Amino acid sequence: MYSYSYLFDFTSQVLQQMGFSESDAAGCARVFLAAELRGISTHGVIRLTDYYKLWEAGRINVTPDIRIVHESPSTAVIDGDGTIGMLPAIRAMNTAMEKARTAGTGWVAVRNSSNFGIAGYYAIMALEHDMIGIACTNASPLVAPTFSAVPMLGTNPLAVAIPAGQQPPFVADFATTPVTRGKFTFAAKKGEKISFGFAQDAEGNPTDDPTAIEHGGSMLPLGGDREHGSHKGYCLGAMVDILAAVLSGANFGPFVPPMMSYLPLLDQKSGEGWGHFFGAMRVDAFMPANEFKTRMDKWIETMRNARPAEGQDKVLIPGDPERENEERIAREGIELLPQVVADLGIIAKKAGVKF
Amino acid sequence: MYSYSYLFDFTSQVLQQMGFSESDAAGCARVFLAAELRGISTHGVIRLTDYYKLWEAGRINVTPDIRIVHESPSTAVIDGDGTIGMLPAIRAMNTAMEKARTAGTGWVAVRNSSNFGIAGYYAIMALEHDMIGIACTNASPLVAPTFSAVPMLGTNPLAVAIPAGQQPPFVADFATTPVTRGKFTFAAKKGEKISFGFAQDAEGNPTDDPTAIEHGGSMLPLGGDREHGSHKGYCLGAMVDILAAVLSGANFGPFVPPMMSYLPLLDQKSGEGWGHFFGAMRVDAFMPANEFKTRMDKWIETMRNARPAEGQDKVLIPGDPERENEERIAREGIELLPQVVADLGIIAKKAGVKF
Repeated sequence: MYSYSYLFDFTSQVLQQMGFSESDAAGCARVFLAAELRGISTHGVIRLTDYYKLWEAGRINVTPDIRIVHESPSTAVIDGDGTIGMLPAIRAMNTAMEKARTAGTGWVAVRNSSNFGIAGYYAIMALEHDMIGIACTNASPLVAPTFSAVPMLGTNPLAVAIPAGQQPPFVADFATTPVTRGKFTFAAKKGEKISFGFAQDAEGNPTDDPTAIEHGGSMLPLGGDREHGSHKGYCLGAMVDILAAVLSGANFGPFVPPMMSYLPLLDQKSGEGWGHFFGAMRVDAFMPANEFKTRMDKWIETMRNARPAEGQDKVLIPGDPERENEERIAREGIELLPQVVADLGIIAKKAGVKF
Repeated sequence: MYSYSYLFDFTSQVLQQMGFSESDAAGCARVFLAAELRGISTHGVIRLTDYYKLWEAGRINVTPDIRIVHESPSTAVIDGDGTIGMLPAIRAMNTAMEKARTAGTGWVAVRNSSNFGIAGYYAIMALEHDMIGIACTNASPLVAPTFSAVPMLGTNPLAVAIPAGQQPPFVADFATTPVTRGKFTFAAKKGEKISFGFAQDAEGNPTDDPTAIEHGGSMLPLGGDREHGSHKGYCLGAMVDILAAVLSGANFGPFVPPMMSYLPLLDQKSGEGWGHFFGAMRVDAFMPANEFKTRMDKWIETMRNARPAEGQDKVLIPGDPERENEERIAREGIELLPQVVADLGIIAKKAGVKF
C-alpha cells in the first residue's frame, strides 16, 4: 500500500526530471492520483511509464506554449503544443469556466494534445463553482463502428458532473463502449472467454476471444450489436470524436496517433495530436443556484429510493462507486500491482528519483 | 399513399380547429410531417389523435404565452405555458441560435411543455446556419435505471446535427434505450418474443415478454444489462432528464405527466410539464466554417470507406437511413396504417375537417 502523498511526490518528481515545471508536474500528478483514488487504476500511475517512454522517444513536449488560437464570448480553441494531455485539459477547463462566468456557458476544444487521464477530473473541476462540467476526448482507434470490420474510433469517454446541495454530486464518467479494454487483458491472463457483445474478430464477426483485438479485431460500441443498439453507441463515440477533434483541428478517427512509444507514428494525419472538448455551464444562468441544487437533491433522492430489482441492494447514482472508492482508498492507501511497481522502479532509476 | 401536402394541410387544419393560430398550426404540422418523411411514423400523424384528446381533456393550451423567464448571454429558460411541445421547442431552438450568433453558442432549457415529436427536427434547424444543433427531451417514465425494479426515466432521446460540406450532414437522433417501445407492441401483436436486453419484469428480472411493460415491467437503458454497460445508458438518460427538466424547472424522472388523456395526472409534481434542452454552436466560433465542413467531409468519407464487416454492405453515417427514407417517401408518398387512417377519420369528423 502506498499513501497518496508518497505517490504524488514521486509522480511529480519524475515529471520534473523529464523537464516539466514544478507547477505543471503537480497539476499532472493530481490527475494521475485522482484516478488511483477513484479506483480507476488503469488511468493511474501505471500510465507514467508510457509518458516517460514517449518523452524518451521525443514525442512529448515538456515546455509547451499552450495557447488560445481562436475564441468567441463562449468558446475557445486551445493548441496543446504536443505536451502531456493533462496540461491543456486543465487550461481548457479553466478557460471554459472563465467564459461561463461572463457568457453563462463556456466551450473549449483542444488540439495537439495527448491522453489526458480520466475525463471525470476535469468535469469535477466545475462543481465548486456551481457549474455543470463536461469533458470528453478522442483516443487511439480500437472500436469498430456498427457494420465496420475495422477499428475507426477510440473508446472516447464522456464525463458530466452536476452539482447538488446536501447530496453528493452527480458524476458520470464512462467510455462509449460496454467495457474497458482492461477487461480483455484480465480475461486473457486468466484464460477466460469474454461475453459476446464486447468484441468482434478481424472479419467483423462476434467473438468471445479476449485476444481478438491483438489479431485484427475490434472493440464494439455501447449496445454491442445492431439489434441491441450498437449504432447508438457508435453515434456517441462519433459525436465525441467530432467535437474533440474535427472541431478543434486534431487528428480524428483512425488518424489519432498511438500513445505507446513502441508503435510507429501513422503515415497519414488529419490534424494535430489528440483532441478534447470541454464545457462549463453556470447553473445560475438557468435558475438560482440554490434552487437548482435543491431540485438536484430531490432528483438524486428520488432515484436512490427507487425499489431495487430482485437481488440488488439499491439503485446507484452516477459517481457513487467512485466516491466510495475515494473514501476507502484515501483511508487504506493505494494498492499497486507488482508489475506496476517494477515498471515505476525502472523509471525511478532512469530519472534518478527515489522509489 | 398520402402526399406530404395533403397530410400537411389536414394536420394544420385540425390544429387550427383546436384553436392554434395558422402559423403555430403550420409550425407543428411541419414537425409531424418531418417524422413521416424520415420514416419515424411512430412520431408522425399517429400522434395527432393523442394531442386532440389531450386538448378535449383540457390539458393542452392552444393560445400559449411562450416566454423567456431567465437568460444570460449564451443561455435562456423558456416557459411553454402548457402547450403542444413543438411550439416552445421551435422557439427555444431559434433562441439558442440567436444567442449563438453573438455569444458563439446558445443553450436553452424549456419547462411547462409536452411531447415535441422528433428531436432531430430541432437539431437539423441549426444546419443551414452552419451551426451544430443539439436537442433532447425527457418523457413519461418507462425505463428502469440499472438495479431498479421500477421505471424512473423516459426513453429520453438525444439528437445532434453537424453540418458538412459536399457530404450530407451528420444527424444522430436516438432514444437512450436499445429499441423503441414500438418494437414491443409489434412483437406482441405478432405473438413473438423480444430479445433479452430490452425489458425486465415487475421484479426487475430479465424477460423476453413483449407485454412486460403492461404488467409492471420496464424498458432497459442502452446497454441492456449491467455487464453490457446498462449503467452507461442510465447515465445518458439521466443527463438528458437533468438538463431538460431539473435545470428548466419541469417535472423530472417519474413525475413527468402522461401524454395519454385516459391516464390520470399524477398526484405529485416536481415542476411544470415536460422539459427539453437545446443547444446551438456556431462552427466558426471554433474555426472557419469552410475549414470545418471540409474536415467533416473527410470524417464522413473516412467512416463510409471503412471495410465492412462480413455480410454487411457498408458502414453508415448517422442520418443516412432517415435521409434515404426522406428521398423515397417524398417520391412515393406517405403510407398510413389502417388504424391510423381510422383514428384520423374520427378526429376529422369531430373537427369538421375533410379527410
